[in-house]
Amino acid sequence: MDGTTTRPAPQARIRSWWGWGWADEHPADAECVAMGALLPGTLARPLPVPDVRDLVRGRRLGAPAVQPPAALAHLLTADPADRAAHAMGKAYRDVARALRGQPGRIPDLVARPTGEQDVADLLDWAGGHGTAVVPYGGGSSVTGGVEYRGDTHRAVLSLDLTAMRRVLEVDTEGRAARIQAGALGPDLEAQLRPHGLTLRHFPQSFEFSTLGGWLATRAGGHYATGPTRIDGFVQSMRVVTPVGTSGSWRLPSSGAGPSPDRLFLGSEGALGVITEAWMRLRERPRHKASAAVSFTDFHAALRAVRDLAQSDLSPANCRLLDAGEAALSGAAHDGSCVLVLGFESAHEPVGGSLARALDLARSHGGRHDADTGPAPDRGPDGTPGGDAAVGAWRAAFLRMPYLRDGLVRMGAVAETFETAATWDRVPALIDAVRTEVGAAALKATGHPATVNCRLTHVYPDGAAPYFTVLAAGRPDDGVALWDDLKAVAAEVLHRYRATITHHHAVGRDHRPGYDLQRPEPFALALRAAKDALDPRGILNPGVLVG
Amino acid sequence: MDGTTTRPAPQARIRSWWGWGWADEHPADAECVAMGALLPGTLARPLPVPDVRDLVRGRRLGAPAVQPPAALAHLLTADPADRAAHAMGKAYRDVARALRGQPGRIPDLVARPTGEQDVADLLDWAGGHGTAVVPYGGGSSVTGGVEYRGDTHRAVLSLDLTAMRRVLEVDTEGRAARIQAGALGPDLEAQLRPHGLTLRHFPQSFEFSTLGGWLATRAGGHYATGPTRIDGFVQSMRVVTPVGTSGSWRLPSSGAGPSPDRLFLGSEGALGVITEAWMRLRERPRHKASAAVSFTDFHAALRAVRDLAQSDLSPANCRLLDAGEAALSGAAHDGSCVLVLGFESAHEPVGGSLARALDLARSHGGRHDADTGPAPDRGPDGTPGGDAAVGAWRAAFLRMPYLRDGLVRMGAVAETFETAATWDRVPALIDAVRTEVGAAALKATGHPATVNCRLTHVYPDGAAPYFTVLAAGRPDDGVALWDDLKAVAAEVLHRYRATITHHHAVGRDHRPGYDLQRPEPFALALRAAKDALDPRGILNPGVLVG
Repeated sequence: MDGTTTRPAPQARIRSWWGWGWADEHPADAECVAMGALLPGTLARPLPVPDVRDLVRGRRLGAPAVQPPAALAHLLTADPADRAAHAMGKAYRDVARALRGQPGRIPDLVARPTGEQDVADLLDWAGGHGTAVVPYGGGSSVTGGVEYRGDTHRAVLSLDLTAMRRVLEVDTEGRAARIQAGALGPDLEAQLRPHGLTLRHFPQSFEFSTLGGWLATRAGGHYATGPTRIDGFVQSMRVVTPVGTSGSWRLPSSGAGPSPDRLFLGSEGALGVITEAWMRLRERPRHKASAAVSFTDFHAALRAVRDLAQSDLSPANCRLLDAGEAALSGAAHDGSCVLVLGFESAHEPVGGSLARALDLARSHGGRHDADTGPAPDRGPDGTPGGDAAVGAWRAAFLRMPYLRDGLVRMGAVAETFETAATWDRVPALIDAVRTEVGAAALKATGHPATVNCRLTHVYPDGAAPYFTVLAAGRPDDGVALWDDLKAVAAEVLHRYRATITHHHAVGRDHRPGYDLQRPEPFALALRAAKDALDPRGILNPGVLVG
Repeated sequence: MDGTTTRPAPQARIRSWWGWGWADEHPADAECVAMGALLPGTLARPLPVPDVRDLVRGRRLGAPAVQPPAALAHLLTADPADRAAHAMGKAYRDVARALRGQPGRIPDLVARPTGEQDVADLLDWAGGHGTAVVPYGGGSSVTGGVEYRGDTHRAVLSLDLTAMRRVLEVDTEGRAARIQAGALGPDLEAQLRPHGLTLRHFPQSFEFSTLGGWLATRAGGHYATGPTRIDGFVQSMRVVTPVGTSGSWRLPSSGAGPSPDRLFLGSEGALGVITEAWMRLRERPRHKASAAVSFTDFHAALRAVRDLAQSDLSPANCRLLDAGEAALSGAAHDGSCVLVLGFESAHEPVGGSLARALDLARSHGGRHDADTGPAPDRGPDGTPGGDAAVGAWRAAFLRMPYLRDGLVRMGAVAETFETAATWDRVPALIDAVRTEVGAAALKATGHPATVNCRLTHVYPDGAAPYFTVLAAGRPDDGVALWDDLKAVAAEVLHRYRATITHHHAVGRDHRPGYDLQRPEPFALALRAAKDALDPRGILNPGVLVG
């Protein structure tokens, strides 16, 4: 559709059941063809947008294997489109399978609890009926986190938390709020805005992911430096498990034993269902400044980023795009790498910090066009501003998943993956991923592939490289091709002792890498905890343990 | 002893087996008498310094119940003084019991492993011989963390890690180091200093506590705001458990499942023995500024501190002393409360931040003597500087535990405890603790007691109040009196849903409060993890679970 068309109001918009985000944001056929033309070896025409009715006709979507009890019937639906939309997440392999009419196992029922007791009742019922329960927030998992892949359960229930979407209490003095787990990003922020507060957690999936999903997957946020992972903003949580509900106290900090919340943060629905949390908030930033710096030498840019992360300047944004990524996002067209820098504060002017950061970047060979100058920033929440390169990057950032789906319709493999490693490993790790994944794609398809890298988060002791792979597909086995490429990538990550995931979570796709990464005694402890909390093994089976 | 006497070199100094720190730092009898005179109802003369030989003579310290195997004999000792020194921590109730010749159960053997394999061998042997293993770092626990109190084990082994004290590797580029768990604070910093790096973790026990102890108890550090708890500085850890050794990968950040390290952080020796960790370091600060601000109204000072914590100024130090605490530490003598402020940075000047913080404090009625002006700071690591009130507070801070022991020799009850709560509860909580503990002490002893408060750590969403209680004892039952007063305090904390401990850990003294605080499903998970990792139940029995 034309980008200038007036879009319907959000409540009237339709979410895509097979691809990313809003159905009306998907690139039209002509745009898919134009994109495909840039990548050798793709199809001449896009695969058609799939139709749920074909799944019913093709008997991939039949009658549910269990009948909802009358007492819970008002929370449950067996609607085919609803069930299909809850079958998978939004990874390349999910979109590719949907386009080919081969989705994963479709849940028998979708439940939409309206409160904690509903969740407990649903778990009780499922436990007594051999039914696996897959907690579902915004459904934006790119690692198979919301897709049942086992065969040992009689039925599968997708537990959609999005009806539990309210900000229940706000403590303005202490800058915190009690928020239900099913609140999607924009809805959550809209409810906080009248209080002058913000969670300011802006993953790329912001529009299509929930607080509960962020907590369950330990999501990485907006801030490129400093505390950014959602973990650090949790004051307390409530989690419904099959053996009872866990509620931690609302505390600014405690040293009483291992943190209860930290066991459930990252538990990906395998230990319990997160129903609400008190979250630490911020005042909305009033001071912002951003700039883009270009570098000829990627390794020099890496050193600049490391120095910035180790300075006391604390940029809110410090994302480095390699030349390919900068070109793809329109941030540069001359083969430069681009460093996107941003500072923000509710109380303190930040122009001085940006100026010092630019000096530091220049000392590593960075170039910043002084005529453009630092300019106010524009955030996903609509605050004003915009340095041109920064704005181009951000618009592309939010558009990328839609374009990815367009490329998949052209038969391409288009996917991302991410990791984190200490600085001593980062340069060689990035080079190895580029080289080895690129070579594997060339060998498998006969066409050169694109393997770009950006740093999404940086730390004083390391960074989180994020890779984009664009490759010609193979007719009818694009998923297998991607699985092969991902295995090559995972092997490189393991060799460099880089994490299998920085913020995409483990899900089911990352289980082999996760099992290699986690210490065996911890795995024993986690399995024991799982058995204690979920004795019937109904919670998101196959995730993390079991 | 006279404070001006030249002290022997550290290696020649003798640690007190019954009280805090160095034996030669303990106040002399005359100083004890002078202190006692300030507190109504104390003894006329100090209790004598106890002698280990009396424990042997009184049959409180007999032959070990187990014999060390020949293969491990070189790691073990049954020396009476060594065993007595490992029997308890350094709480009031520990010192009081030692002074009365009634220490807790004295370990049969003390082990000093020199490496990870030694630890594994010792656990193997202990598991096969019904021997409880109590991990021991600097022994500064004030919550019964290093004292075996059960009766179900044949023998008790104190596992003293201090022979494992080396910085094994330093990554200057990534500002991190691999450090053995038994390194005491000053030794650790001395080994990092040649690299220009510092962990900058300065609990009050800095001289007498180890990295492993900090990790096992989730210690709170030097920084009064921002990331200060040791948890945030862990890159990876190695932990020896009875079923194998857990080694996490060295990562700047990872979202792969619940954090393995977070299970062992705060595990207080109940899940495994921490042997080493890669720790995130900082460059040594080159810019420092500090100042003291006085307030007439404690509640106005609380509001000033909250605003500071919610600003983006990030003071390194932001400790509020109430009037009693300010007088006790010499920071004020006119009935004022005192706010100790400090800023530091390796790279950026901090004078501007201090000036803005002073403006903010003044807007809440704070007074800062402009003639004194901001002055360079003095840290426990000996960096130069000193605003007078700040210097007085810091000197008193490090001296307090010694004076506490002097008061205990005068028969007084002298102890501290701490908590944390959200801002909405902090003022009423502090008032309630002061009122109710003070009333209980008066009722029990017939003499008015001192109950002071300071904030040791502040957060945007709350603070950690730290209380000092000085009360007349009762002949021969000071410990029971204190246990009663602590129960009153714990009841107030529970009523306000304030944590049973912010950074003193749970140990054995805080078990009742901890059991009320932690969510029951988490307790189930933790017990299951304990059973999986320590199937014979030998690790620090009675701590956290079991």
